[in-house]
Amino acid sequence: MTRCTDVFDRTDFRQGNGHGQPAVPVDAAFGVEHLHRLRITRNALDPANPTLREVLGDPQKSGGRVLAFVDEGVVESWPDMDQRLARYVAEGLVGFELADPVRRVPGGEAAKNDWSVFEDAVRAIHDEGICRHSYVLVIGGGAVLDVVGFAAATAHRGVRLVRMPTTTLAQADGGIGVKNGINAFGTKNFLGSFAVPWAVINDETFLSTLSDRDWRCGLSEAVKVALLKDERFLELIEASADRLGQRDEAVLRPIVRRSAELHLQHIVTSGDPFEQRGVRPLDFGHWSAHKLEQLSGFRIKHGEAVAIGVALDVVYSAMIGRLAGSDAQRVVDLLQRLGFLLGDPALGDPALFDGLREFREHLGGRLTITLLEGIGRPVDVHHIDQARMTDAIGQLASMSAPAKPGEQTP
Amino acid sequence: MTRCTDVFDRTDFRQGNGHGQPAVPVDAAFGVEHLHRLRITRNALDPANPTLREVLGDPQKSGGRVLAFVDEGVVESWPDMDQRLARYVAEGLVGFELADPVRRVPGGEAAKNDWSVFEDAVRAIHDEGICRHSYVLVIGGGAVLDVVGFAAATAHRGVRLVRMPTTTLAQADGGIGVKNGINAFGTKNFLGSFAVPWAVINDETFLSTLSDRDWRCGLSEAVKVALLKDERFLELIEASADRLGQRDEAVLRPIVRRSAELHLQHIVTSGDPFEQRGVRPLDFGHWSAHKLEQLSGFRIKHGEAVAIGVALDVVYSAMIGRLAGSDAQRVVDLLQRLGFLLGDPALGDPALFDGLREFREHLGGRLTITLLEGIGRPVDVHHIDQARMTDAIGQLASMSAPAKPGEQTP
Repeated sequence: MTRCTDVFDRTDFRQGNGHGQPAVPVDAAFGVEHLHRLRITRNALDPANPTLREVLGDPQKSGGRVLAFVDEGVVESWPDMDQRLARYVAEGLVGFELADPVRRVPGGEAAKNDWSVFEDAVRAIHDEGICRHSYVLVIGGGAVLDVVGFAAATAHRGVRLVRMPTTTLAQADGGIGVKNGINAFGTKNFLGSFAVPWAVINDETFLSTLSDRDWRCGLSEAVKVALLKDERFLELIEASADRLGQRDEAVLRPIVRRSAELHLQHIVTSGDPFEQRGVRPLDFGHWSAHKLEQLSGFRIKHGEAVAIGVALDVVYSAMIGRLAGSDAQRVVDLLQRLGFLLGDPALGDPALFDGLREFREHLGGRLTITLLEGIGRPVDVHHIDQARMTDAIGQLASMSAPAKPGEQTP
Repeated sequence: MTRCTDVFDRTDFRQGNGHGQPAVPVDAAFGVEHLHRLRITRNALDPANPTLREVLGDPQKSGGRVLAFVDEGVVESWPDMDQRLARYVAEGLVGFELADPVRRVPGGEAAKNDWSVFEDAVRAIHDEGICRHSYVLVIGGGAVLDVVGFAAATAHRGVRLVRMPTTTLAQADGGIGVKNGINAFGTKNFLGSFAVPWAVINDETFLSTLSDRDWRCGLSEAVKVALLKDERFLELIEASADRLGQRDEAVLRPIVRRSAELHLQHIVTSGDPFEQRGVRPLDFGHWSAHKLEQLSGFRIKHGEAVAIGVALDVVYSAMIGRLAGSDAQRVVDLLQRLGFLLGDPALGDPALFDGLREFREHLGGRLTITLLEGIGRPVDVHHIDQARMTDAIGQLASMSAPAKPGEQTP
């Protein structure tokens, strides 16, 4: 490969040889630098809290404007959100102007299925005169972050995006990442882009008003990243499982934090943050999870589907002799103690295996599925035996069937 | 700023401290590597020509599929394009499969104004099962490259795009770059992204069938990049001007080549290929050019508008004492010898100056306009004096008024 420097540093090229002799073919390699800011705080919208002010910086050096989008589900729990935002900008962001009104976005997967939500978001960025150095602030769950993030990444070819994820799932996983997207043609995340957010602010205050389901959902991604990267983190989750079930926030917070950090660490150190290669290790358990969401008509939430998908690929890893059976049982036990249901009728749908083809197609190249050889020891395989995976589904059902009170365990 | 390495290399972070103590706040800086392949050839679709085969590589290592989009304007001159493509894939790309049919895209700015063209393109990528390691091949002028490029950049968050620009303008300038986009809400390129193409193949064969207007249009961007970066290249264009008017392809080819190389060199060596800062030097003359296109209802083509815009900012540079008057006259003379009309009624529209606001807004931050201090010596300014720019419009009209035959020059 001819590196750019070989060609472009040649004297005749830099000065022009005056005769138009081509220096091509050129294979020009170059790097683009990105900066991802992660902050974890509480009461981010209290004007005394400097976090948001510090990441936005000097209004004179930016566009000085903020356009805010808020998840309708968040407004249900925080009905005074508009006033909080207006007060923060007035008192905490002197020099900045908040676009009026604050925009509402329907929460949940519906926001990603309807292109008009995306169009409304880009229209708002246009109508409010948000420039490439102004800010879009989005407060919400993962689906709202995804659709507003895609709008912010494509309007003016990208304006600055500050995410405030509000669910355990978004704070522990998706809200940290460099992806956005909307669904199209029946395919989840068919349209989207890789875009590094200006900043992500995890405000732990939002976790207190989550439903029990949303409180739980982020824990499956925490287990997933622990299984891939950090056995000590898995031990922490195991030690915390009972108090997590009692919604003990003091126990939840460090788990969400560590999960967020491990996700960001992966982005920064993996060498392939924009997934140009054929491997996507953080999608452990996701080939079936994405399909289970869709087959259930999104009755199963993403975090719940990930719990099932992780358990299934762990059981399969043991079944083909890669992983100790005791490790598989350990993971299944933990996910159940966290409150996840690991059996679902959708697992019996033969269309589940379409998820393997869709997973390969989205990533490109040959099929690559991450399995486990041990806790913290992922391994990539390029073939899944459908018959044995069907056996794994059956075994997962037997492993996870709750023993009835008084019943003997075999 | 805490660099990622400071945090993520700490032993307690990598191994996990087991207690969930936060390492955040983290300012995580990371780089993403890109590779841009530029090839210049003739008869690229002759199966004996290895260029396309070599950039696509081993079909076993990619998705093995190619989905082709062709500009309707190209098909008018090359009515057997579908057969040429089919034959090239069958004989020159053994192991690859060409999606059937080859897709047509309406040419010119209309393709960028109608979102349904974009939607059709992403639907085709979906329906044909193009994965992230398969190829979209687009053959056409700049507008078609832009809309298909935006589809390829967002479907599956980016599939591999091979561009074959067919006009002098696209081969010399836009087709080389890392931008794509469509128009929205009356704003040119409001939606788009930065995306590095897998490869750009300039097939000089296409230049022979261009209209005189399209033949000429790329020359203004060649003059622009010569003024910014390479006086010897400007001398080459000056020495070639008369033969360019006679459509001498042997003279055109080295000029398009050098222009393409200088644009790629800028992308690779500028340090800001994705325009994260507030400067965009390659857009010299473009604040008025974009507006002139719009004010004329796209009667003025992009390359024609760039000729006017470059001439205007050169005259303004001289008027405010930055540039020698003789240099300004030299540029005006050259553009006229190349056949560009530098006077247009749209220059008298006061809305022209909205172009400054729109230029600032799209780029973000404070206004930055590139002017000239000499040939090959650009300079950034942050203020345009509207009265003097109006004077410059008048002076350009007087400088560029053609002397009638037999008339005495003063």
